[in-house]
Amino acid sequence: MTPQTSTPNTPLGVDPPPHFAVVVAEVERAIEQGLDEPSFPETLRSAVRYAALGAGKRLRPALTLLACEACGGDRATALTPAVAVELIHAFSLVHDDLPALDNDELRRGRPTLHVQYDEATAILAGDAMMSMAFGLLAAGEDATPGTSAALVRELARATNRMIAGQVLDTVGDAADGAALDPASAVRVIHAQKTGALICAACRMGAIVAGADASRLDAITRYGDAVGLMFQIVDDLIDVEQLESHTGKKTGKDEAADKLTYPGVLGVGAARAEAHRLREEAIRALSPLGDDAQTLIDLTAYLASRTR
Amino acid sequence: MTPQTSTPNTPLGVDPPPHFAVVVAEVERAIEQGLDEPSFPETLRSAVRYAALGAGKRLRPALTLLACEACGGDRATALTPAVAVELIHAFSLVHDDLPALDNDELRRGRPTLHVQYDEATAILAGDAMMSMAFGLLAAGEDATPGTSAALVRELARATNRMIAGQVLDTVGDAADGAALDPASAVRVIHAQKTGALICAACRMGAIVAGADASRLDAITRYGDAVGLMFQIVDDLIDVEQLESHTGKKTGKDEAADKLTYPGVLGVGAARAEAHRLREEAIRALSPLGDDAQTLIDLTAYLASRTR
Repeated sequence: MTPQTSTPNTPLGVDPPPHFAVVVAEVERAIEQGLDEPSFPETLRSAVRYAALGAGKRLRPALTLLACEACGGDRATALTPAVAVELIHAFSLVHDDLPALDNDELRRGRPTLHVQYDEATAILAGDAMMSMAFGLLAAGEDATPGTSAALVRELARATNRMIAGQVLDTVGDAADGAALDPASAVRVIHAQKTGALICAACRMGAIVAGADASRLDAITRYGDAVGLMFQIVDDLIDVEQLESHTGKKTGKDEAADKLTYPGVLGVGAARAEAHRLREEAIRALSPLGDDAQTLIDLTAYLASRTR
Repeated sequence: MTPQTSTPNTPLGVDPPPHFAVVVAEVERAIEQGLDEPSFPETLRSAVRYAALGAGKRLRPALTLLACEACGGDRATALTPAVAVELIHAFSLVHDDLPALDNDELRRGRPTLHVQYDEATAILAGDAMMSMAFGLLAAGEDATPGTSAALVRELARATNRMIAGQVLDTVGDAADGAALDPASAVRVIHAQKTGALICAACRMGAIVAGADASRLDAITRYGDAVGLMFQIVDDLIDVEQLESHTGKKTGKDEAADKLTYPGVLGVGAARAEAHRLREEAIRALSPLGDDAQTLIDLTAYLASRTR
């Protein structure tokens, strides 16, 4: 499949690459297995399943598998890190949705965890998903000898950055924010809150594949660009679509006075920036050759998606 | 120092072993260094410091260092795991204190984190402390080659169990609790909520020391006994002492209808059980010989403490 081109102002409704559905199915099975924590009481177990098996796009774990492939690895070896990344993502959504933070009642068209269960369960289930994620990485030591510590380091650093971004976005931070104009501030927040974990997802796939420094560098530049692009597209969808399309209340970021790319730059400039990042991401993959084709196709899809 | 003896009903006010103060001072310095996360915005950084540097007893990290020594290791090599354990403990206190959970406004004689800052910051700072804990363990790979994955596995398993215990204690779980009489239920909750992390603290020290299977087994039996003993003594203090002694509201467990050892067994039987566990813990250490003397002295102190 040749990547489709699009101009900044006319995003096409391209489909995900066919290979993507196969990868997502593998991820789904691995997540289902990864959630099997027999020591958990039934409430906790079912809350974790509700949050982690909630019809997500599985973008991050798919990126882990595809980055592994793009670096010449066998993507089956990247399943455990992929699940760990998705558990960190799921934990962050559960905590971000809490009344004290974004106070969202809908997520992916379903009641959020604290609405479906209660706040205490949502806090603890989020905690449990983070702990499970790191435990899985360490348990995978046998499958990927020597890489567990590197994977834990990578995921912990991204989680720290994601939390820092959420603090800036939700709590605000006069001491840090004062020095930044809105365009810089939205970039910093997005890079941390969304970009860090997406980039780590890619890098963890490369690490499992045993990528050398130049391939790891290519994947890192790809991950940085695609992570920021993904969030800008998300912001654009939030502005442009109706509630029924996204399954969560839209226009909400605006109401909450949150910094967004369209809000700061305008819709046209935000689209142009997403397009620029799409090109930057695809260019970053060029040293990887044909192995990166699915990642290129996925990037084109992510740039043009409308939900 | 010879361990002091006490009968079940007359706990002596023994002092902590002199060596303990030295170990705690080492721990304090290591925690202070471990909290240095330059990527955090100022609010998050100060919230984490508030929670982690709040005059805690440092029991868990001290156990990590002393268990390392008891297994013939150099306790300096156990400082990173010790800090990681304390960060997990601090995270759990911050989240347990939240309004949706125990709704505590005082901790160690100071306002709890969500009172001092706000709920959003407390949730995110707790998350950050967990993530930092695992990141530190993985970053310590150079100091303790090959053990990082084992340490992460150990800490993740204990964190999972601690969260499971908190779910049983706070949220309740009809499906799981129905089968247990109160005496069994309080044992299960305490073993998970408090015992798991204390036992892991000990085991992580032994792992860093490169303990063989028989020493690790001795430390595990010690950790299980001392963890449960510690919580029973805590329950007894809660019943017996006034608010001014503990810095948090006492009699609160009773008011919240939580299961406690004195509540379920009566004060006398709870004291006897603590004494039995003290003997069990000290007996478990006998294979370790003189190296375990400080751990023995600490156990005697923990059994007899009144705050």
